[in-house]
Amino acid sequence: MSESNVVGQWVPATGAGDIVTGAARYCPDIDLPGLLTGKLLYSPHARARIRKLDVSAARQIPGVFAVLTQADIPGENNYLYSQADQPLLAIDEVRFQGDAVAAVAALDEATADAALRAIQVEYEVLDGIFDPLVAMKAGADQLVEGEDNIIMNQVYRTGEVEAALASADVIVENTYRTQWAEHAFLETEGGVALVDEEGVVTVYSSCQAPHRDRMQIARTLAMPESMVRVITPYIGGAFGGKDEAHVQMHAALLAVAAGRPVRLIRGRRESILTHVKRHPIIIHCITAATREGRLLAVKARAIADAGPYHNATHEVMNKFGEFIGGPYSVQNLEVETIAVRTNNPIGGAFRGFGAPQAAFVYESQMDDLARKLEIDPLELRLLNGVETGTKMYTGVVVREGQAMKASLRKAAEKIGWEKRDQCERQPAPHLRRGWGMATILKGSGMGRGLGDHAGVVLEMHRDGSVVLLSGAADMGQGIITILAQMAADRLGVPMSSVRAVRADTSRTPDAGSSCASRQCMVSGNAVLAAANSIRDSLLSVAAGKTKISRDRLDLRDGRLQVDSEPHALTIEELARRALFWGYPLHAESKYHFEYPADVPAGDYRFSQEVFQFCTQIAQVLVDVETGQVTVERLIAVHDAGKMINPGGVYGQIEGGCAQGIGYALTEELIVNEGRTLNPSLENYVIPMALDIPEMEMDVLEIPEPVGAPLGAKGIAESPIIPTAPAIRNAILDAIGKPLYQLPMSAERVLTALDG
Amino acid sequence: MSESNVVGQWVPATGAGDIVTGAARYCPDIDLPGLLTGKLLYSPHARARIRKLDVSAARQIPGVFAVLTQADIPGENNYLYSQADQPLLAIDEVRFQGDAVAAVAALDEATADAALRAIQVEYEVLDGIFDPLVAMKAGADQLVEGEDNIIMNQVYRTGEVEAALASADVIVENTYRTQWAEHAFLETEGGVALVDEEGVVTVYSSCQAPHRDRMQIARTLAMPESMVRVITPYIGGAFGGKDEAHVQMHAALLAVAAGRPVRLIRGRRESILTHVKRHPIIIHCITAATREGRLLAVKARAIADAGPYHNATHEVMNKFGEFIGGPYSVQNLEVETIAVRTNNPIGGAFRGFGAPQAAFVYESQMDDLARKLEIDPLELRLLNGVETGTKMYTGVVVREGQAMKASLRKAAEKIGWEKRDQCERQPAPHLRRGWGMATILKGSGMGRGLGDHAGVVLEMHRDGSVVLLSGAADMGQGIITILAQMAADRLGVPMSSVRAVRADTSRTPDAGSSCASRQCMVSGNAVLAAANSIRDSLLSVAAGKTKISRDRLDLRDGRLQVDSEPHALTIEELARRALFWGYPLHAESKYHFEYPADVPAGDYRFSQEVFQFCTQIAQVLVDVETGQVTVERLIAVHDAGKMINPGGVYGQIEGGCAQGIGYALTEELIVNEGRTLNPSLENYVIPMALDIPEMEMDVLEIPEPVGAPLGAKGIAESPIIPTAPAIRNAILDAIGKPLYQLPMSAERVLTALDG
Repeated sequence: MSESNVVGQWVPATGAGDIVTGAARYCPDIDLPGLLTGKLLYSPHARARIRKLDVSAARQIPGVFAVLTQADIPGENNYLYSQADQPLLAIDEVRFQGDAVAAVAALDEATADAALRAIQVEYEVLDGIFDPLVAMKAGADQLVEGEDNIIMNQVYRTGEVEAALASADVIVENTYRTQWAEHAFLETEGGVALVDEEGVVTVYSSCQAPHRDRMQIARTLAMPESMVRVITPYIGGAFGGKDEAHVQMHAALLAVAAGRPVRLIRGRRESILTHVKRHPIIIHCITAATREGRLLAVKARAIADAGPYHNATHEVMNKFGEFIGGPYSVQNLEVETIAVRTNNPIGGAFRGFGAPQAAFVYESQMDDLARKLEIDPLELRLLNGVETGTKMYTGVVVREGQAMKASLRKAAEKIGWEKRDQCERQPAPHLRRGWGMATILKGSGMGRGLGDHAGVVLEMHRDGSVVLLSGAADMGQGIITILAQMAADRLGVPMSSVRAVRADTSRTPDAGSSCASRQCMVSGNAVLAAANSIRDSLLSVAAGKTKISRDRLDLRDGRLQVDSEPHALTIEELARRALFWGYPLHAESKYHFEYPADVPAGDYRFSQEVFQFCTQIAQVLVDVETGQVTVERLIAVHDAGKMINPGGVYGQIEGGCAQGIGYALTEELIVNEGRTLNPSLENYVIPMALDIPEMEMDVLEIPEPVGAPLGAKGIAESPIIPTAPAIRNAILDAIGKPLYQLPMSAERVLTALDG
Repeated sequence: MSESNVVGQWVPATGAGDIVTGAARYCPDIDLPGLLTGKLLYSPHARARIRKLDVSAARQIPGVFAVLTQADIPGENNYLYSQADQPLLAIDEVRFQGDAVAAVAALDEATADAALRAIQVEYEVLDGIFDPLVAMKAGADQLVEGEDNIIMNQVYRTGEVEAALASADVIVENTYRTQWAEHAFLETEGGVALVDEEGVVTVYSSCQAPHRDRMQIARTLAMPESMVRVITPYIGGAFGGKDEAHVQMHAALLAVAAGRPVRLIRGRRESILTHVKRHPIIIHCITAATREGRLLAVKARAIADAGPYHNATHEVMNKFGEFIGGPYSVQNLEVETIAVRTNNPIGGAFRGFGAPQAAFVYESQMDDLARKLEIDPLELRLLNGVETGTKMYTGVVVREGQAMKASLRKAAEKIGWEKRDQCERQPAPHLRRGWGMATILKGSGMGRGLGDHAGVVLEMHRDGSVVLLSGAADMGQGIITILAQMAADRLGVPMSSVRAVRADTSRTPDAGSSCASRQCMVSGNAVLAAANSIRDSLLSVAAGKTKISRDRLDLRDGRLQVDSEPHALTIEELARRALFWGYPLHAESKYHFEYPADVPAGDYRFSQEVFQFCTQIAQVLVDVETGQVTVERLIAVHDAGKMINPGGVYGQIEGGCAQGIGYALTEELIVNEGRTLNPSLENYVIPMALDIPEMEMDVLEIPEPVGAPLGAKGIAESPIIPTAPAIRNAILDAIGKPLYQLPMSAERVLTALDG
């Protein structure tokens, strides 16, 4: 087969034109006849008992169509990420600033606000639980009566950790702290719900998992899933923050109660105050090595502040433990992962899912170790790096690991690592320049022992045009674009012939959540299988018509190819004949990622098997008078398997690095007694265009052998992971002082300089 | 497996409640923001050349958003049933009263009417061609210059017809005439079109073939099919009259041109004047037999008035030829089928598709023969009737033919045929009573050598609820109800768990047209295949969970059954587990009806292979003073294979008989020089409730062995077919005079009495 003219090409993302011109319709843009405005009333307290909740006055206000409390929810009153402990509307107690107590739908925003003001709530304010280290102590005040505040305490051990520590030549031992971080997606959470003529509750949802949304909405409405439809309009980013359902649930409840369509969009302040954050974690880590730098053991203990409800805490901390060893061969490892309930913001899913915190620890440890041993950090990493065939401490054997060292070497080559002594380290009296690297691995997919599947439907029409129906939510990451590319490639039609429909549970099969860098693999494989089945139909017709054997036939550029030469028969003609004769041009496939059905005893549970490797090197300039850190250069070398749409891959890297710079230097939600003090993008500082250096990116295309369609694999999460430790190590290189807390604000840099 | 508690049960049609309460939304009920009214300007002449067409004044009228002529159509300007010879908007000539010359879209009906009036057309009126017998003569004026007026002249011969005629003991030779008949569906043709945000042209279409509509709309818009979506809202009947596309095409053109949604609904008068009719045919038929009544030969020549365009004429006349021998073993047969172009109304598809005209001929011939031979008409029919294994003159071997004689015997038993002499034949001096029977066969499916396939998608959700996606248009015949029954049956869930979605090409796979009594078979088989695949998933999970072997497991009443006893595991639980583990609960299947790929040489082309048999017996009372015929009793015994929804089967029989009574006695479009003189339901007289006797119905359930899901087969067409000849034979029995022309109006009865 000749080289593809679709796959591997820079292709504009599906809908890019509409996004750029403003024609694309996001949830806030959806207008419907009779549309009501939905709003939620939140608790003003981090912890309080609800003594009285009276909505009768609110219900009397003209223009108010529905006022709901927990008593008005027909079905289950909770979210359901892993455990159903977070109510949609508080029952008898509020446990953090994001707990809603009532929902209203009214003719307009002013009337909705009036309704919120008319709701009378009497709270008995309780002492909050805000420090996880206090909360986890025996005898501490219980956040949920009768339940331990420690909601997770998992210890995983492999090898002989204590013996390895005892025999080590050198030990590095530090305590790290990470912050609450905000997704800061362009579009806040929102949903628009209506009941259609058939009684189907139809919800436009800014989400990552439309089919799981459907399930949750049905569950809370006490309706069958067949009577609920979730459509994803354009979505302005998610980064894990829309993996769990949010206000689309309330919109659905309100629309059913009001008998009119309801649009409920969180404002920015509301969004920051209420939705999930990246977990703050306190990590104590001991790394032991021989004097040659060979890693002997890692021992870590991590305590996460979960906030009041489970949400994704268990899963995130599980991934933290899976990656705390880094992309290194570590045979003796112990990791204790603890999560504690507090009345602080809830921790949840966020790009990287525990891996950014882990990478900040293990890559800082590596540079501290390199300094202690006086070994080049690059050499130390190359010495210990995993390779194809390395058995990880999790029990997983790396099937394709070349990219670990290749990305290190490529990044070093790009910046000229061997000449780093020639770098001008003090360009001005108050400025110090430094270089720092970080290399990481991150898995793709749900993980072993978990169902990881996606369905897709492809239909070719009589005229050769194609519709691709995938339930994979496209939040801007471009999944439907690359799925369309794969379909176009296999069917021999131009990209313009493939229309990829945005996820709509009434039309598109379940593809699971767009999370865990998984959609490229699972939905990609499903697309290839479906396309191959249509391809079979077309080639059967072609073989029958031309009497030429199948192995000489191919499809490309809208035509049949015979021995790689264009033939007179077009795809359109083949499609027309195929349909007449009943060869299927409508194919559905369901791909199931192949993990071992039972995880071997002693292996880390739920560990991933396909890895993204990457290395980033930062050059920073530290102002030793102000503590200000400027990232001057950022080299990012990432492994993407085979790139389907290079524009999408480079976009993911660029965006991840920008997000990583913010995570490293400026982004931090300041929470005092459960109250976020900076709930705006004026005070929660994300990098602006000028804060981001020209990116020096490179992509390694080392095809993944298993489970990766055309060799491609996910790239969504890895870009954010090494940025913070690379910057941290560059600061260390610049000022000679290590930092152990994120973000590395000017204040903390000054403190380090003072210390 | 225990007996089904869903299949075979009387089930209310899906949506019946909404239909009864008026909540169901038909095309005329669809309202959208900015909706425009579409209208068409028709030719006032049956035949004329367009000298000038000036729409400029119409375009200037405020509130007029689009005025289209043939010059404004971006793609193909034609319909496409079999040949693309009928323009959507006339090009340089108008050829019948239904030819449109311009289309307008305006703010409201009055403005649209004003626009129509402002369009200036100069016609050069031409002499019309109205008599097919004249038009078919050599040298006749050509309707289309350079083309013969005879558009079909097909002779099919089997056996030794002339020799058989020469050797016959008795010959019956007559000439029959049938009329233009009107579908008189409750809802006239209509469509509502809009362009959605993604640029997809979305058309609500009152149609029988949504996927073919999509193709045709795409073709005329010069857009890919992937950018066209056809949705069927509720549809108020079709009977073949909405098989070919109609004004939904113009609605789509107008919506694209106007940039606003357009609703175009034909008024009743407009509908009668413009859309296809049942063909009027002049048939000369010779039937030869031995003196014992054994049929020796049939020789027929049929001349159909096609109107000016092909439409379904070729296919209808093909079926006429296929059925002119009736349900009898006739080994020597010649049938010549001729169709002639005229400037009269167009002939097209109508329930029975040529078979009602054929049955009027062959069943009248049988009674004339019986009288000549003085044989009981029942005996004559039993003597010659086909059986399982009979090779028809078409070459087709009857796979299951018991119902031919069984229906005759059952009908005779119900009326008490053996005691017919005891019937009071002259209850008053001016009244004559008579009994007449007719027995017929009608095939189901597209016919041999034609693609005959249907796709379906079934999805079971986590909670056991099911969505059924079929592209089969439900025009009121209830197809989606029986498909849902089949799905519920196979999946062991109650009917209330299955939501069948109305056809929508963006969601539902192509099921072909709802015509030819085919959907029960093709879509039914597709549903069973899809349901079996989901059933497999559920039973695999159940077997894994219970460790009980698969052959002891079944699904019923929402639960697993073990050895036919309910088990604790519910379908919901099985579904939840199946989804988690990636067992598919979303199944697509495509069923392809198995005809021989190549029709054997000498066989009748495109003949059907699965037959509906039925017998009807009418008791009539003829007023010999007025000629008025009253149908006092109508016995109808029909073969349905296995009934899926008995209510639907009985409904089809009842409706078909009512339509057949109208066809027999009162319904006739009077056309003078191409102009229909009675374009209203006041003058075109369909039977009212009081004209229809209490029906005496019976259904034989003789399972069809091949290609029939659960043994079921189509029942849509056969009920109308025997009614007219049964009534004709009853009139003959009553007054002793044969009639040879439909309808058998009071005037014609009086003429027969005088003759």
